[in-house]
Amino acid sequence: MLGAMVMQPTQIRLVDYPTGTPTDETWTLTHLPTRDLQDGEIEIDVQFVSIDPGMKGWISPWRSYIDPIQPGDVMRAFGIGPVTKSASPRYEVGDVVSGFTGVQTTAVVDSRGVRPIDLGLGPAELHMSVLGMTGFTGYFGMLDLGWPEPGQTVLVSAASGAVGSVAAQVAKRQGARVVGIAGGPAKCAYLTDTLGLDAAIDYKAGPVAELLEAVVPSGIDIYFDNVGGETLDAALMQINRKARIIVCGGISQYGDMTTATGPANYLQLISKSATMTGFTMLDYMHRIPEALTDLSAWVEDGSLRHRQHILEGIESFPEGLRMLFRGENHGKLLIRL
Amino acid sequence: MLGAMVMQPTQIRLVDYPTGTPTDETWTLTHLPTRDLQDGEIEIDVQFVSIDPGMKGWISPWRSYIDPIQPGDVMRAFGIGPVTKSASPRYEVGDVVSGFTGVQTTAVVDSRGVRPIDLGLGPAELHMSVLGMTGFTGYFGMLDLGWPEPGQTVLVSAASGAVGSVAAQVAKRQGARVVGIAGGPAKCAYLTDTLGLDAAIDYKAGPVAELLEAVVPSGIDIYFDNVGGETLDAALMQINRKARIIVCGGISQYGDMTTATGPANYLQLISKSATMTGFTMLDYMHRIPEALTDLSAWVEDGSLRHRQHILEGIESFPEGLRMLFRGENHGKLLIRL
Repeated sequence: MLGAMVMQPTQIRLVDYPTGTPTDETWTLTHLPTRDLQDGEIEIDVQFVSIDPGMKGWISPWRSYIDPIQPGDVMRAFGIGPVTKSASPRYEVGDVVSGFTGVQTTAVVDSRGVRPIDLGLGPAELHMSVLGMTGFTGYFGMLDLGWPEPGQTVLVSAASGAVGSVAAQVAKRQGARVVGIAGGPAKCAYLTDTLGLDAAIDYKAGPVAELLEAVVPSGIDIYFDNVGGETLDAALMQINRKARIIVCGGISQYGDMTTATGPANYLQLISKSATMTGFTMLDYMHRIPEALTDLSAWVEDGSLRHRQHILEGIESFPEGLRMLFRGENHGKLLIRL
Repeated sequence: MLGAMVMQPTQIRLVDYPTGTPTDETWTLTHLPTRDLQDGEIEIDVQFVSIDPGMKGWISPWRSYIDPIQPGDVMRAFGIGPVTKSASPRYEVGDVVSGFTGVQTTAVVDSRGVRPIDLGLGPAELHMSVLGMTGFTGYFGMLDLGWPEPGQTVLVSAASGAVGSVAAQVAKRQGARVVGIAGGPAKCAYLTDTLGLDAAIDYKAGPVAELLEAVVPSGIDIYFDNVGGETLDAALMQINRKARIIVCGGISQYGDMTTATGPANYLQLISKSATMTGFTMLDYMHRIPEALTDLSAWVEDGSLRHRQHILEGIESFPEGLRMLFRGENHGKLLIRL
């Protein structure tokens, strides 16, 4: 019987909220059968899940923009895959959808919580990166909050990352001078040689404040911040009048909530009449079609560069998450299930 | 001869940049004659000078929104008084003007650097407070960056101060619920009983974070921040979605630039899609007439409350500045020369 060959559903579950960096003991692998569908639900054969910086917040006991998950729960994650059963008029078996599937091979979810995916625009892994949430985040953050223009200087931290690389390239398309920050010579070469940015700063090569000062002699008009900490403070010291700081993430601050430090130089906002604005993709869910139209056209014509770092198998999740926080991935970090 | 009765010009000069709180040794009193006017200059008989938080920045070696003064210079300050000599077509002897006169009894300044004062709108001391830069700062900061509306909750720190009291009352006029923070029962009683705010928080009565949580059960939509530090962090934890934080000052951070601390909770800006915006009155100099029309009408009809704390004599400046930083003044701190 073919049924006997079907893989058993497998899940990654949270054992308990970690203090500091999650370890292997933070997680447990379970093999529990998928439950029956209720009205409006669908079952998804999850093909890829995404590993994202926001996960640190989802496994801390503090509420941020969404509630943390509870110990015992399947780990929250964005996923993508075909519908295998449907109790919803929205989707038929075979439709491809994306949304919060969790880190599991088979997901049963409310059909209102996912969105349909057009594989005609690109393969599934692109819909989990440049044509997915991270791409949209870079796109809307830069265009809607930064509005870069020719003659302006734009700084992007974690610029080789999934969000930063889109934000940086979008600013470049608008005619701005774009400087990216990344860790190590390989990532910096990627910024200038592949993405075509005007300059790259290797934050591992010295104090960011000194490196930055030399590269932005006419100051910074827009700073797209993914990291916080020392880098944000250095950027604040170089902002121009009416500068806009877009706070997209603060990965340097996610390690341990109790030792978070704010930007000591924030009073520069006063002397420069500048703005610091935070956002999440929840603000832009209704505008995804706009982003998708632009981003897919730019991917298609080759002008928007992107890369995925794909790990194999659900068991790679615990180490994958640590990789992300050590900055060891090259491109959007995904797991193929 | 009447000439012999004219007071000798007197100046307060900076000896050297202080480390920490300025002391009596930071300053020296000089009696130097006023120089001859050059083309375009006027001489002013200074009647009041203003003591402002920004002065800490003007006597530090770091450049903020304007250059610091140099050791040996007359201390920078806003002042007001009649023109006593004119080499400018802009002003005649007897016209009253206001601008950077410095802490001195007689000032010779470029006539383009002052603005004419209409004493018909109120006496000179009001043009140094509610009808002057501090009033304008509260007015534009709250209305142009905060845009309070009925149903919203507005928090103002240093709400009994010269800027905060105007910001708070302007928000109240717009129909918002307004909570003020001040130090001690007397100032808090002033906020609720005289200014008509909805609630007051005495920051000396306990941790601001705890006191605040109880007073803003539905969160904060607008925070007008004059103090920074612990108060800003407490406010960040209570902001609502799309909240606006207006960074007007950070008096808690002015004591020693080397120990400045940023808002550790700034990542709340992300989860709440909120904004932190800084400004100075330099952004609004061209719009002073708007503010003056509204504020003078509200002072005239008694609906905008204000008070001045007037010290007598130029010698009171060093102690006056310390009073300001200890929060001991009640109302806009001025010196009558």
